[in-house]
Amino acid sequence: MENKSIIFTKRPNGIPTSKNFLLQNETVPSILDGEILLELVYVSVDPYLRGRMNDVKSYIPSFEVGKAMMSGAVAKIIKSKNDNFSVGSHLYGMLDWKLIQVSDGTGLFPVPEGIAPLSSYLGVLGVTGLTAYFGLLEIGQPKENETLVVSGAAGAVGLTVSQIGKIKGCRVIGIAGSDKKIENLKKKFGLDDAINYKKSKNLIKEIKESCPNGVDIYFDNVGGEVSDAVIFNTNNFCRIAVCGAISQYNDTKLSDGPRINPLVISKRLKMQGFIVFDYANKYLEAQIQLGKWMKEGKISLEETVIEGFENLPNAFLGLFEGKNMGKMIVKV
Amino acid sequence: MENKSIIFTKRPNGIPTSKNFLLQNETVPSILDGEILLELVYVSVDPYLRGRMNDVKSYIPSFEVGKAMMSGAVAKIIKSKNDNFSVGSHLYGMLDWKLIQVSDGTGLFPVPEGIAPLSSYLGVLGVTGLTAYFGLLEIGQPKENETLVVSGAAGAVGLTVSQIGKIKGCRVIGIAGSDKKIENLKKKFGLDDAINYKKSKNLIKEIKESCPNGVDIYFDNVGGEVSDAVIFNTNNFCRIAVCGAISQYNDTKLSDGPRINPLVISKRLKMQGFIVFDYANKYLEAQIQLGKWMKEGKISLEETVIEGFENLPNAFLGLFEGKNMGKMIVKV
Repeated sequence: MENKSIIFTKRPNGIPTSKNFLLQNETVPSILDGEILLELVYVSVDPYLRGRMNDVKSYIPSFEVGKAMMSGAVAKIIKSKNDNFSVGSHLYGMLDWKLIQVSDGTGLFPVPEGIAPLSSYLGVLGVTGLTAYFGLLEIGQPKENETLVVSGAAGAVGLTVSQIGKIKGCRVIGIAGSDKKIENLKKKFGLDDAINYKKSKNLIKEIKESCPNGVDIYFDNVGGEVSDAVIFNTNNFCRIAVCGAISQYNDTKLSDGPRINPLVISKRLKMQGFIVFDYANKYLEAQIQLGKWMKEGKISLEETVIEGFENLPNAFLGLFEGKNMGKMIVKV
Repeated sequence: MENKSIIFTKRPNGIPTSKNFLLQNETVPSILDGEILLELVYVSVDPYLRGRMNDVKSYIPSFEVGKAMMSGAVAKIIKSKNDNFSVGSHLYGMLDWKLIQVSDGTGLFPVPEGIAPLSSYLGVLGVTGLTAYFGLLEIGQPKENETLVVSGAAGAVGLTVSQIGKIKGCRVIGIAGSDKKIENLKKKFGLDDAINYKKSKNLIKEIKESCPNGVDIYFDNVGGEVSDAVIFNTNNFCRIAVCGAISQYNDTKLSDGPRINPLVISKRLKMQGFIVFDYANKYLEAQIQLGKWMKEGKISLEETVIEGFENLPNAFLGLFEGKNMGKMIVKV
């Protein structure tokens, strides 16, 4: 049995590259009483990890240089000296980018066998689905026949938000970065319209055409000029759930854009940032609802699966080039 | 008896000047059955009027070129052919900038005689007080010992917000534009600290020093760089009531500033615009509370009173030069 890890070697300045990571051989650890040995099965790569690469105080600690990277993952128990955990079953939660690692189970959740594919626990039933669920329902407060615009609509969170928006009876417009994604959003996921911002000559006008009744809810995954264009099309009392700002994550300082305060006032906009952890006490009810929608076929999550543990850095870097449709996952 | 009006002669492009207004002689109108004749006593000039000078769709209609200006005012009934209104009593509400004008009383409210000075109905008990009350209490949600920062703190709304903040047990920090205002805020109105942004070499740092526990609530009357500096000092879950953006009202297009989305997310900021009219169904309860606080001496509103109807344009223009401490009022 061999072991490997991916080490975070230095903090990026701007866009990260493969040089920020190092694939390293490790010994296979032994376990003590109360511990278990875990083997990674699926690893999630997500835009928010970019923030953890900076040395700034934020809602979760920065990655430490010289230590293994870490993200959401599903792992299989391959040894156990803890009666609560049996060999062969699966757990999910935050795990190191190490093929094999020791745990005492703290912060990890059991995967109920046979209910949903293992990778769902990184997607619809995991942090992705929960982020979409709470951001849209708690901040967006969607009502039937309202118009919902989702940026980064082909990403994991965006795709889930779009589908929940349809379930809630909204007209849903997605913004994404390739014609293939646009087609997928409309044909496969039933969005009412979708716009390729990379091809658009006048995004404000295109959004206006796609949203003849204006924008009532904006679920923002990207920030920057795309968001400006949506905000210029908002209706009075529009709710803006600020979930991500992938267009800004690699900036070394905050970029400039139009100061929207006069619009915020005259249209009574509500812009609210959130982090899924803030809703931890409601995870269970949300997972039950998301699982029900998944079972009823009302919600599904396209996955972009990259094979091979050593490809974790590339999968992560691909997020910033828009390479993923739906959830970007590495199958170890 | 003579009559005069101030006509809005042309839309300003950028900063308005006296050339946008014309003092004009008028005949004294006669009244029909059901009507009353009103003589202006006090007229309020407010930053939001600048927005009405633009030809854009907003929450209240634009001023029409060639017609009289209009704003909040207190007037005396000098003739009446309506049994609901008796000569000698006062009304307040939106009125034309005409010394003498006809009304049927629609949209006007009676001033209860002898309870508070007439000008209060443009200040603490009028739109100013209501704006402060609802913005701070409904959006700001102040809790005891929280830190509240108020920009435009020496203006009419800012001064009222600051005092309500003290009543609610907050540490209140004001930002204003002259040493005299700063001294007044601290010594006369009991703010915990106040900062002269015009003299500040590093506003972010000065706010940090005045708010050692960070900013929990920001009541924003100004927008622009002052707001940026406050927002960089916000705590997690800070509420930002976006009431005004006087620093931007004379811009011909939205100016640029840092895109704060990454902060909005990581700190879970809530930024919400509002307009006092949205709370019209709660005016009465607010006026009762504000009146009680006024009577108890917990809240008072400094007034900058300019004498003479013909000085209305200058009083209005003075707002953009920060000439007022508290409420800017013209005594006709």
